[in-house]
Amino acid sequence: MNPLVGLIMGSTSDWSTLEHAATTLDALGVPHEVRVVSAHRTPDLLFEYAAGAEAQGLEVIIAGAGGAAHLPGMVAAKTVLPVLGVPVQSQALNGLDSLLSMVQMPGGIPVGTLAIGKAGAINAALLAAAMLGNKYPAIREAVREFRARQTATVLNQPDPRLI
Amino acid sequence: MNPLVGLIMGSTSDWSTLEHAATTLDALGVPHEVRVVSAHRTPDLLFEYAAGAEAQGLEVIIAGAGGAAHLPGMVAAKTVLPVLGVPVQSQALNGLDSLLSMVQMPGGIPVGTLAIGKAGAINAALLAAAMLGNKYPAIREAVREFRARQTATVLNQPDPRLI
Amino acid sequence: MNPLVGLIMGSTSDWSTLEHAATTLDALGVPHEVRVVSAHRTPDLLFEYAAGAEAQGLEVIIAGAGGAAHLPGMVAAKTVLPVLGVPVQSQALNGLDSLLSMVQMPGGIPVGTLAIGKAGAINAALLAAAMLGNKYPAIREAVREFRARQTATVLNQPDPRLI
Amino acid sequence: MNPLVGLIMGSTSDWSTLEHAATTLDALGVPHEVRVVSAHRTPDLLFEYAAGAEAQGLEVIIAGAGGAAHLPGMVAAKTVLPVLGVPVQSQALNGLDSLLSMVQMPGGIPVGTLAIGKAGAINAALLAAAMLGNKYPAIREAVREFRARQTATVLNQPDPRLI
Amino acid sequence: MNPLVGLIMGSTSDWSTLEHAATTLDALGVPHEVRVVSAHRTPDLLFEYAAGAEAQGLEVIIAGAGGAAHLPGMVAAKTVLPVLGVPVQSQALNGLDSLLSMVQMPGGIPVGTLAIGKAGAINAALLAAAMLGNKYPAIREAVREFRARQTATVLNQPDPRLI
Amino acid sequence: MNPLVGLIMGSTSDWSTLEHAATTLDALGVPHEVRVVSAHRTPDLLFEYAAGAEAQGLEVIIAGAGGAAHLPGMVAAKTVLPVLGVPVQSQALNGLDSLLSMVQMPGGIPVGTLAIGKAGAINAALLAAAMLGNKYPAIREAVREFRARQTATVLNQPDPRLI
Amino acid sequence: MNPLVGLIMGSTSDWSTLEHAATTLDALGVPHEVRVVSAHRTPDLLFEYAAGAEAQGLEVIIAGAGGAAHLPGMVAAKTVLPVLGVPVQSQALNGLDSLLSMVQMPGGIPVGTLAIGKAGAINAALLAAAMLGNKYPAIREAVREFRARQTATVLNQPDPRLI
Amino acid sequence: MNPLVGLIMGSTSDWSTLEHAATTLDALGVPHEVRVVSAHRTPDLLFEYAAGAEAQGLEVIIAGAGGAAHLPGMVAAKTVLPVLGVPVQSQALNGLDSLLSMVQMPGGIPVGTLAIGKAGAINAALLAAAMLGNKYPAIREAVREFRARQTATVLNQPDPRLI
Repeated sequence: MNPLVGLIMGSTSDWSTLEHAATTLDALGVPHEVRVVSAHRTPDLLFEYAAGAEAQGLEVIIAGAGGAAHLPGMVAAKTVLPVLGVPVQSQALNGLDSLLSMVQMPGGIPVGTLAIGKAGAINAALLAAAMLGNKYPAIREAVREFRARQTATVLNQPDPRLI
Repeated sequence: MNPLVGLIMGSTSDWSTLEHAATTLDALGVPHEVRVVSAHRTPDLLFEYAAGAEAQGLEVIIAGAGGAAHLPGMVAAKTVLPVLGVPVQSQALNGLDSLLSMVQMPGGIPVGTLAIGKAGAINAALLAAAMLGNKYPAIREAVREFRARQTATVLNQPDPRLI
Repeated sequence: MNPLVGLIMGSTSDWSTLEHAATTLDALGVPHEVRVVSAHRTPDLLFEYAAGAEAQGLEVIIAGAGGAAHLPGMVAAKTVLPVLGVPVQSQALNGLDSLLSMVQMPGGIPVGTLAIGKAGAINAALLAAAMLGNKYPAIREAVREFRARQTATVLNQPDPRLI
Repeated sequence: MNPLVGLIMGSTSDWSTLEHAATTLDALGVPHEVRVVSAHRTPDLLFEYAAGAEAQGLEVIIAGAGGAAHLPGMVAAKTVLPVLGVPVQSQALNGLDSLLSMVQMPGGIPVGTLAIGKAGAINAALLAAAMLGNKYPAIREAVREFRARQTATVLNQPDPRLI
Repeated sequence: MNPLVGLIMGSTSDWSTLEHAATTLDALGVPHEVRVVSAHRTPDLLFEYAAGAEAQGLEVIIAGAGGAAHLPGMVAAKTVLPVLGVPVQSQALNGLDSLLSMVQMPGGIPVGTLAIGKAGAINAALLAAAMLGNKYPAIREAVREFRARQTATVLNQPDPRLI
Repeated sequence: MNPLVGLIMGSTSDWSTLEHAATTLDALGVPHEVRVVSAHRTPDLLFEYAAGAEAQGLEVIIAGAGGAAHLPGMVAAKTVLPVLGVPVQSQALNGLDSLLSMVQMPGGIPVGTLAIGKAGAINAALLAAAMLGNKYPAIREAVREFRARQTATVLNQPDPRLI
Repeated sequence: MNPLVGLIMGSTSDWSTLEHAATTLDALGVPHEVRVVSAHRTPDLLFEYAAGAEAQGLEVIIAGAGGAAHLPGMVAAKTVLPVLGVPVQSQALNGLDSLLSMVQMPGGIPVGTLAIGKAGAINAALLAAAMLGNKYPAIREAVREFRARQTATVLNQPDPRLI
Repeated sequence: MNPLVGLIMGSTSDWSTLEHAATTLDALGVPHEVRVVSAHRTPDLLFEYAAGAEAQGLEVIIAGAGGAAHLPGMVAAKTVLPVLGVPVQSQALNGLDSLLSMVQMPGGIPVGTLAIGKAGAINAALLAAAMLGNKYPAIREAVREFRARQTATVLNQPDPRLI
């Protein structure tokens, strides 16, 4: 099935974070593709990928990067598709640099930014599915079931004093 | 026309920020409604609004708040619709508290967070329209034209030395 | 004996922090109950718990959470009981996000916030006991003895050069 | 009527913040006294005040200070009454120093810390009243009415587009 | 004379900062050109400008931007010329976001970053001239004289008590 | 010999930091005493110690503490001797809280603050010795020799490429 | 009378902060001199001043600077006299940069750092006087009287509700 | 061949960071020398080195240091050569102190600052080579090839799902 979500990252070292987005998209039955695209080391690939994403049939792009994280913002500059950003936890500043480099985009080019690290990767997938759910009822229901299971898991947790 | 976007804020004092979202949605021809809903002072209204948003026909919710900004996260906890958060610039900490209170959501409940203040409000509208554009071609084209005009404006700027 | 303090947390993973509150309440002889209640994953349980706390006989609620920590603030929105918040140390931002998400509540709905992590959990229990001590003389005396023992421990510490 | 709340501050310049605590206590009918007590410039008065507060009939102490804000922590070191801290917004660091100097108390001596500035002052009064409400039913009802009025105010706000 | 330095900025609103770079380059006799190039709103112009800079005869590029400031990093991704970044002071976060978005570039693509605001703009010009001075003796001497005058100005300052 | 420096800390757990102050004072031949004095858990001891320090013959007090570090500031409030503060690296916030709680003292009561952790402990000892050196020539010379050896050590370092 | 304190600053624009040090030294009767010495623009003067300070009869140096504030640290590198640093509030980062540039000195070369801005300038003077008081009884008594007057001022403050 | 780049650091402990600059300069064929020069412990060597660098034939200086990192700024104060700064990751504040101490130089004396840690060391070498490339065509081509190989490496990365 043609991918609806393009999941890209600046380096293979970001995969340990972004794989949680891929796993979550799989759990929700959202077809997606995975690519390594570096804003700084492969700028032409970045432009080509972003400019062609709509024609290729993608409907959402999730981009993860760390440090001076320009990937989601530059993708957003080259497409009218919605772009979500996942700040990867960086070595020195723990991802605060990644977060600010993504979320503080100037008015005109949006990046919907999620939490730093694994939680953000999971949530980028969930937010992409929430968006797609408006158009694809099966994805809407998959999200609804994911959420219901998640609630049930908390409700059924044992008393922490017994752990 | 039935609103597709619900634009809510924690207080009327947030309107000077969020009105930029409303103006941008207007410019893009995206039907929307505006409500004051406070997570802390009207929690029941918040739950009722969020739980009923899907049935009411809304497809995206934009929530703006400042300080310990719980509004978008709690809306997201009560709906499977995509939720976007706009951190309002706060008095003492300049919106850093608003930003972290929104963006650092735990895995499982996403809030797509935009920049602090006016730029974030504009971009929440643009991101909502980008999402809706996958389903509504007219909105997709409106975004494309908005972006083209925006690019043209920069290209036609006078030499700054002449200002 | 009917619990006076409700000790809740967003996830069982928060127990390694919050157990220090439970241990301290035990040491002070303050009856309490422990529950996992997630603001984001079980919002209805949160509302039900908070709205019913007063009728159930609770007099203080201690809520611990991490990241975009909305639990204590949303509990406070649904009860007139005093609510204390314990910011759990988070992965990327070391609990600064948890702290700001709790302490920066808007005027109208208070959360008395303690330190990040274990020290905050101990102190939430001590502060709850200090509050209850105004009404329950036995708890007041238990706090007084706890404090006296604590002072004695410091006064009797060996010379650090001999450790 | 004998004061139940002692409202102290490090300097008369803090009054423009702390007066919001006094006003809120007045609105809730909570008897209180106001004193200027500086941890650094009048340490003996601080110790005398804190050590005598319980015998004097006070049941809660609210302390506001800015910068290296040691007032609430040192009061807490000298009393078993519950102590609430209001971080006053400082000149250079906007109250982040005030906040961390209060909230990061070591395990053993708690300070329940509220938001930086005016919101924190209002909320210190509300939290003091919530505590006292467990013992004094009239204060509990005053808080309940305050909260109901507050909710009604939000529900009756005009459409922000009409402001 | 053919410009040696390309001075670009993301928006005409950055000119009040970057004009200090232009003034300083003028004072040092370094030929330069000024352009508005937005990473996000005119990405194609950015790529074209950066990719063509070397052939055009430029030897240094100074790029100023604010917020999620991607301009210098993306220019650096498209040229082997040295690129200097000037973080413009932003509205909410005072330029901390601009600074981190520039300076925290991943290994492989450098941006030499200067101070936030006016001081950084002056220093970008001085650093560009220092670089060029290795090849152009007249620029080296102009820097030497600029620095000598600067030292003399401090040495000749009146006693501050007499101001 | 009567101690000239009083070296105090809030807890024996601070000794692993403060021992570097003791070692450095030993190396400089400055007589000193070491005490555990907690601002929060032994406030009366703190007041007694600080108030009596001058009469006891101490000429400088070095105080180390972590988190909401009130020890040096409260000592300074009770003595006219010079007080130096060493911020101990804290668990969650890495000593930023310790630093701000010490250095941001209000006008009127000074604490000379050194770096967070081991470097600060060493430097507190060196600064105490520098102060005492104005009165005690032997200490002045000991500092001069310490500094000369330190310079020689750097000058004699091997080429790092050979390590 | 020969100056005991050298009060230096990086620029005449720092005088509005540092004049509070001068005023306080005057109030305490501590002879001092005032000089503009820039670490970056007059490095040779800085070295000459610092290296000659001891021989000139100075016993303490107070250095104020802003931004990347290297002045006190470099003075300390060239003298065995005690050096105190006053971080001047900077334009973009409010003096956090000035503070960290001073206080985080490596082990071996100490700078006793005071608060950002006016409070720090006052306290640098008070700390210098506290140091000198060990050797000069008249300065010790002047500090004692200053502190007593300060305490009396707080004790005699009117009820803030009457202001 | 005579070195074109002087690579200096404040301590041999900085070598584990700065060696990445040396390795990168080697890979680019840029002749360089390595020295340990401490701003604080060997200030005279620092001045001598910086003042003589131009006459010695150096064209760029790269200086790395941590904490209150004054080395690059003080070198810049004593030479008209371009100076690049590498903030070494510090123990307590993770290099934020190192970064601000370098990058926030006042107008008049520039330091081109790179990222904290290893990435910054690599990039300082690349930026030095980019500068030198304007004068030395072989270095320009070496940079071009380095960048092309870097791009190819990313383009040839395996699908991260297969790692």
